[in-house]
Amino acid sequence: MSQSFTPIASLGEFGLIDRMNERLADVPRSENLIEGIGDDAAVYRAGDGMLHVVTTDVLIEGVHFDRTFIPTSFLGWKAIAVNVSDVVAMNARPLYATVSAGLPRNFSIEMMDGLYDGMAEACKAYGLELVGGDTSTAHALYLSITVIGEVAEEDVVFRRGASVGDYLCMSGDVGGAFAGLKVLLDQREQLENMGESYEPDLDAFQYVIQRQLRPNARLDIINALRDAGVRPTSMIDISDGLASEVHHIGRRSDVGATVRIPAVPFDPETRAVADQFLDEIDAYALFGGEDYELLFTVREEDVPKIDETEGVSVIGTIEEAKKGVRAYSPETGLMPLHPAGYEHFGEAPQPGAHASQDGPGFDETDFSGDGA
Amino acid sequence: MSQSFTPIASLGEFGLIDRMNERLADVPRSENLIEGIGDDAAVYRAGDGMLHVVTTDVLIEGVHFDRTFIPTSFLGWKAIAVNVSDVVAMNARPLYATVSAGLPRNFSIEMMDGLYDGMAEACKAYGLELVGGDTSTAHALYLSITVIGEVAEEDVVFRRGASVGDYLCMSGDVGGAFAGLKVLLDQREQLENMGESYEPDLDAFQYVIQRQLRPNARLDIINALRDAGVRPTSMIDISDGLASEVHHIGRRSDVGATVRIPAVPFDPETRAVADQFLDEIDAYALFGGEDYELLFTVREEDVPKIDETEGVSVIGTIEEAKKGVRAYSPETGLMPLHPAGYEHFGEAPQPGAHASQDGPGFDETDFSGDGA
Repeated sequence: MSQSFTPIASLGEFGLIDRMNERLADVPRSENLIEGIGDDAAVYRAGDGMLHVVTTDVLIEGVHFDRTFIPTSFLGWKAIAVNVSDVVAMNARPLYATVSAGLPRNFSIEMMDGLYDGMAEACKAYGLELVGGDTSTAHALYLSITVIGEVAEEDVVFRRGASVGDYLCMSGDVGGAFAGLKVLLDQREQLENMGESYEPDLDAFQYVIQRQLRPNARLDIINALRDAGVRPTSMIDISDGLASEVHHIGRRSDVGATVRIPAVPFDPETRAVADQFLDEIDAYALFGGEDYELLFTVREEDVPKIDETEGVSVIGTIEEAKKGVRAYSPETGLMPLHPAGYEHFGEAPQPGAHASQDGPGFDETDFSGDGA
Repeated sequence: MSQSFTPIASLGEFGLIDRMNERLADVPRSENLIEGIGDDAAVYRAGDGMLHVVTTDVLIEGVHFDRTFIPTSFLGWKAIAVNVSDVVAMNARPLYATVSAGLPRNFSIEMMDGLYDGMAEACKAYGLELVGGDTSTAHALYLSITVIGEVAEEDVVFRRGASVGDYLCMSGDVGGAFAGLKVLLDQREQLENMGESYEPDLDAFQYVIQRQLRPNARLDIINALRDAGVRPTSMIDISDGLASEVHHIGRRSDVGATVRIPAVPFDPETRAVADQFLDEIDAYALFGGEDYELLFTVREEDVPKIDETEGVSVIGTIEEAKKGVRAYSPETGLMPLHPAGYEHFGEAPQPGAHASQDGPGFDETDFSGDGA
């Protein structure tokens, strides 16, 4: 067929999302659909005052993970957890999952057992159930998971609810997953240089490797916030990197923000890795992806409750849109904060974006997760 | 890692499903989950007396389709339609879809436009909306779609509701999609022999090629049955082949069945293709997959209503389980009817199972779609 051929990478990440949305524009919209493409998950009315949310995320060998790094049980866990993270970012709890798995010829029953054990473990930990799926042969291992969750209509939190005067908060710490990736890549390189076949050493730098290979969705945090009587005004999960997610909230809420760099938590082990590689710890914390913590905003009067809640930190403030997204540190003062790791479609790999540093020319577009 | 390596193909299709279910067995079950793995779709309570159903199906290049055969707009349509077909088989109407797409490097913007146009067209035709997704680079083109639908609690139809004395019915005709595949494979072979680059001739045998490349989910049929005042006692969509689906209903309902071969409808063009290839039309009709018609059972008193409903046929009867699944024709009398195209995991490709006749050693396991 004599069609013209324009590479997808030429569109860029947002160009691709916009173009997909254009093609879908004249599909009639259901009156029960509250949020379609444009947040961590789609949201629709389910009845009895409850909303359901649905999200889908795919993990592809050679793009999102390297099978020499990650035991299949961790991969199964991670595939569920990254989707639960999107559900939790709507302030919802996960209910059901479907899994579509493509298994290459060099995938054994033992590996598959590990994969399903990991998924089962995550399902138990997060209280959801795997209710259906489709398994097929494929050219490489891929896992596409869809998770459905629920939230009372009055409790749902979008990316778009932040207001000037709100405070910017996050759970846990950031940069660890990227530090873990650095360690794993370095281990592989060293072993390859010695001519030995690679086997990951999961004991060194346990915390950061765990952050990379077996991330945790923060269902515990939305429960803790509820117990503390705090309803975030906006929320997103930190999958692409902290700076990128602040930009998402800013754009969807039509606000600016200032991130106070010294207030952004990182683990000592993350710092040790950055030091070992002579890297800036701030770059890990701001631009390293895949930590799956929650970034959220709260009203000023809720800040004392946040201060009393374990595992969450106030890291900045919400300001007028015209001020843009900025970072403050005593050394540099106020500086524009670019999203980085963000517009990575068609560009060179960014820090922490994915496990594959030498994969194909574009990474991924989660178009339920971008403010199109 | 010194794990043993047992090929997945050694498990067989049911072995794989059983093994996955074992790994998931101790995940606590939600009280709102009515049907998990084991029917065309999972079913759960959504509130206000409504049930939601969810299903996922994947199409992978080289396994389920051949990109030289199918325009991307047809592929987009088909990816939505095959999932809608599973929703419809629960007597539900589709509401929302998510799409997870893996795009290889040789996939252009023009091809992607076609893909999304096809999905948008199917969404409009079936009244559902694409609400989220995840797009990534991949080694080959794959599309994993999840569709959520709804049905009133009193209207849901499972595979497991057939009773002795019910009548076996189906919509439309069967064997056409397999005939279309035969034509396309033959065209490719002829052109390759002539040393020309292959381009499909979509004008020859239009009906059967359309059946293969752009199947229709029978949402119209469940509406027609409702209008006629008929609620099927059991239902399944015909994706693997008619004989296979009768076995599914038989096993899940604990009944046997007799299919009256002369009553099974096929299109004259399907017969013309079978004649041209010196094949048995009955093999196309019974074992050819991918027709996406509905197979269902009705109570005896509803048979007159079926007779008056356009597009549906009575093709047999439900009998005691011990009689098994049988076929009757005047020439052969009563004969056991084997599922064929059914236990195809790890076996040689079966008629009509998939577009790739020389793909890897196993095909696919839709474990929401098998009576585990």
